[in-house]
Amino acid sequence: LSDLVERLSTLLGPRLRTDEAARAAHCRDRWVLGELADLEGRAAPLPLAVAEPESAEEVASVLRLCREARTPVVTYGGGSGVCGGVRTASGEVVLATRRLAGLVELGADDLVARFRAGTNGLAAEKRVQEAGLTIGHWPQSIDLASVGGLIATRSAGQYSTAYGNAEDVLLALEAVLPDGRILRTRETPRAAAGPDLRQLFLGSEGIFGVITEVTFSLRPLPEAMRGQAFHFGAFGAGLDAIRAVLREGWRPPVVRLYDVTEGERAFTAWCPKGRAFLLLVHEGPAALVETQLRAVAARCREAGGVAADAAAADHWLEHRNQVPSLRGFLEKGIVVDTIEVAATWSRVLPLYERLLVSLREVPGILAASAHSSHSYRSGTNLYVTFAVRPAERSAMAAAYDECWRRVMEATLAAGGGIAHHHGIGRVRRPWLAAELGPAGLATLRALKRALDPEHLLNPGVLLPDGAEA
Amino acid sequence: LSDLVERLSTLLGPRLRTDEAARAAHCRDRWVLGELADLEGRAAPLPLAVAEPESAEEVASVLRLCREARTPVVTYGGGSGVCGGVRTASGEVVLATRRLAGLVELGADDLVARFRAGTNGLAAEKRVQEAGLTIGHWPQSIDLASVGGLIATRSAGQYSTAYGNAEDVLLALEAVLPDGRILRTRETPRAAAGPDLRQLFLGSEGIFGVITEVTFSLRPLPEAMRGQAFHFGAFGAGLDAIRAVLREGWRPPVVRLYDVTEGERAFTAWCPKGRAFLLLVHEGPAALVETQLRAVAARCREAGGVAADAAAADHWLEHRNQVPSLRGFLEKGIVVDTIEVAATWSRVLPLYERLLVSLREVPGILAASAHSSHSYRSGTNLYVTFAVRPAERSAMAAAYDECWRRVMEATLAAGGGIAHHHGIGRVRRPWLAAELGPAGLATLRALKRALDPEHLLNPGVLLPDGAEA
Repeated sequence: LSDLVERLSTLLGPRLRTDEAARAAHCRDRWVLGELADLEGRAAPLPLAVAEPESAEEVASVLRLCREARTPVVTYGGGSGVCGGVRTASGEVVLATRRLAGLVELGADDLVARFRAGTNGLAAEKRVQEAGLTIGHWPQSIDLASVGGLIATRSAGQYSTAYGNAEDVLLALEAVLPDGRILRTRETPRAAAGPDLRQLFLGSEGIFGVITEVTFSLRPLPEAMRGQAFHFGAFGAGLDAIRAVLREGWRPPVVRLYDVTEGERAFTAWCPKGRAFLLLVHEGPAALVETQLRAVAARCREAGGVAADAAAADHWLEHRNQVPSLRGFLEKGIVVDTIEVAATWSRVLPLYERLLVSLREVPGILAASAHSSHSYRSGTNLYVTFAVRPAERSAMAAAYDECWRRVMEATLAAGGGIAHHHGIGRVRRPWLAAELGPAGLATLRALKRALDPEHLLNPGVLLPDGAEA
Repeated sequence: LSDLVERLSTLLGPRLRTDEAARAAHCRDRWVLGELADLEGRAAPLPLAVAEPESAEEVASVLRLCREARTPVVTYGGGSGVCGGVRTASGEVVLATRRLAGLVELGADDLVARFRAGTNGLAAEKRVQEAGLTIGHWPQSIDLASVGGLIATRSAGQYSTAYGNAEDVLLALEAVLPDGRILRTRETPRAAAGPDLRQLFLGSEGIFGVITEVTFSLRPLPEAMRGQAFHFGAFGAGLDAIRAVLREGWRPPVVRLYDVTEGERAFTAWCPKGRAFLLLVHEGPAALVETQLRAVAARCREAGGVAADAAAADHWLEHRNQVPSLRGFLEKGIVVDTIEVAATWSRVLPLYERLLVSLREVPGILAASAHSSHSYRSGTNLYVTFAVRPAERSAMAAAYDECWRRVMEATLAAGGGIAHHHGIGRVRRPWLAAELGPAGLATLRALKRALDPEHLLNPGVLLPDGAEA
């Protein structure tokens, strides 16, 4: 065993795991290319060891020991990422946060809950619900992800239209910097005390430090909840309806518009053939929910929408986190993935059309569709799903890359943003320079050099050409 | 004339101003200690020259020339800061943004307006109102400040409870980095493409670059507007009412609770003696405003509030940006200033009581009071006003420092945040280390070294011990 492993073992005892099962369980996230690599016998190299620190101080010690040994550290939360944010190389150490778990403090009057960063997302939500409160942050990965990972990736929740995304539910955090120092942001509702240091870690994907605590700003569980649904003659008409609703200041937590393909596939019982399907969930005081239901119905009618059975919302609520097995498709020679991008209202329909046309030109494409699931005053996201079966099994990775390239290029050409909420990881790195521009990318690199001059934290992620020092 | 002045003059022609009037007009902001220093014959040294670039490219050239000459650059927007964010030293160059003015692009469907950074805040608001839209960001300095300055200081608007603060109305920005590179963030409603680079400039107070364009996310002008007012037996009861209103999810744009002292002083005609005074303005679709008015009235009654004449809101709307002359007070030997801090709900009433007790112990104190003007689910701000007349005129600066020290220390002791929205500037620098903690401050210093290794942008501001390289 290496000297580093010995020193980490002295520090952590049995919480330093060097058995092959532990190392294999932490060598990658749920990126479909990782799954495909496994299937094709090109699995990621196993890390040296998996460290499971129990405190911020232990995290600091792990980082210091690894730094002394010039050994890269990959932080592993819930392992639910889908962009390759975790993929180990041999000789690296994985820092798993699972033992940094549980509620530290709940302030019901202040609507504040402080969790250790390895706490499972659904466990955290259930814990605050016991007190009649909610985090209101429902990414599809909630039962897999850690709360630290939800912050480090700038995740979005299904209820974002009213409750916001990771950056909106985060009140404060604690993180261990690459040099082992522990940073805690102040637990205050708002500050103008220099740039907001929480933002360094929101979206950092493990390259600037290890998040060890997350303090959420909560809400009471709502008094009322009501589903609502409409169908439209075209995707664009549904977009117009959402734009009108948000423009007026209404904020239903869930606003999801499925295109004709997805409406038929996912809402067969409720969506007439050839129609786009809009599903909403309203929450809040009963008086607000009633007022908002009426206003949304009026805006939808004006945009040509026809009311559909609100039972579709119950169906969605029940099934919303069920995802088909990627592995099952891969074994049939089919690669399936999702890509989320965003654009302002005037750009989003041209983008939708452009990227579907482009995807449908890929040889072997079986399906290409999209929905909008996170809307803002100025625009919305597109959540694209594609399935491709190339003629040769050996071409699956290449076909996958081709689909991604087309969606990324269509998005940049239409003036959209390449990543709405899954992050950059490894899959989007080739397009980060175009997204941020040369000065933006240079700034991100300068921050990396300032905080982690030896590039030891999660190398290969986020920054293009991760080897560049 | 120095070599640098000659080169800047070649670049800018008459837009490089070296006359004493221009230099004197740009040597400080509206910090009361600057005003006092003037009165006492200790005025700030004049800068070498005032550069007035007309484009981002010219800003880049100014920064490059100054960097070559190792000359510090102080960016000057509207000059409305009240914390000493602008105070020149001899040999420095002022970069005034006033000629970077006007609307670049208005996207009414996307609710987006791009302004050059030197545009006056009120001019920007009026411009979008011509299109039936609003930025909805109403800091008290709106008719003085530049839109770039409003972002660089993380300003808060009077309508923040519904519309958010600087960070919430900002969609994108362009900034020139210290090395002259031009950074533009992508105009997209939301991204998870690494840390949000806009955040480096929000609150940077001129130390990381020069903001040259600001793109706001707008709203349509509201259909309905209604004022509302209540009085309470104690400040704490009013806080309970606001907390209950926000907790339920209601968002009146203006929510202002004045303590007994301020209620009597500012709302004599409407606030019975000895009562705290709560003033609200509701905006939005008429149906929402009506529903919200009723809900707020119910929550206020439950907290012991008594309805007052809503005409008080009209009075406030008319007079909200009238500020008495600091100079007039100084000439009478009285120093008047305001200090805004923030805390979570459970900490804010103890903080209110502690800081008023502490201020009232200062020899020569004439008045000390506070109101809450920006509320959040998790807490609120306190906006403290004090007036002190020391026995000796020569002790005015010392008395001022003593008042600030007491409010800052009371805030830190109560677990509050030292700066809600005026920024750090020079006045709060001694307490920034306590606000951010040692690792937070070290991180901020690391960012400064990464972006401006020679410390040439606005030295002496924000970072404690600005001389530290």
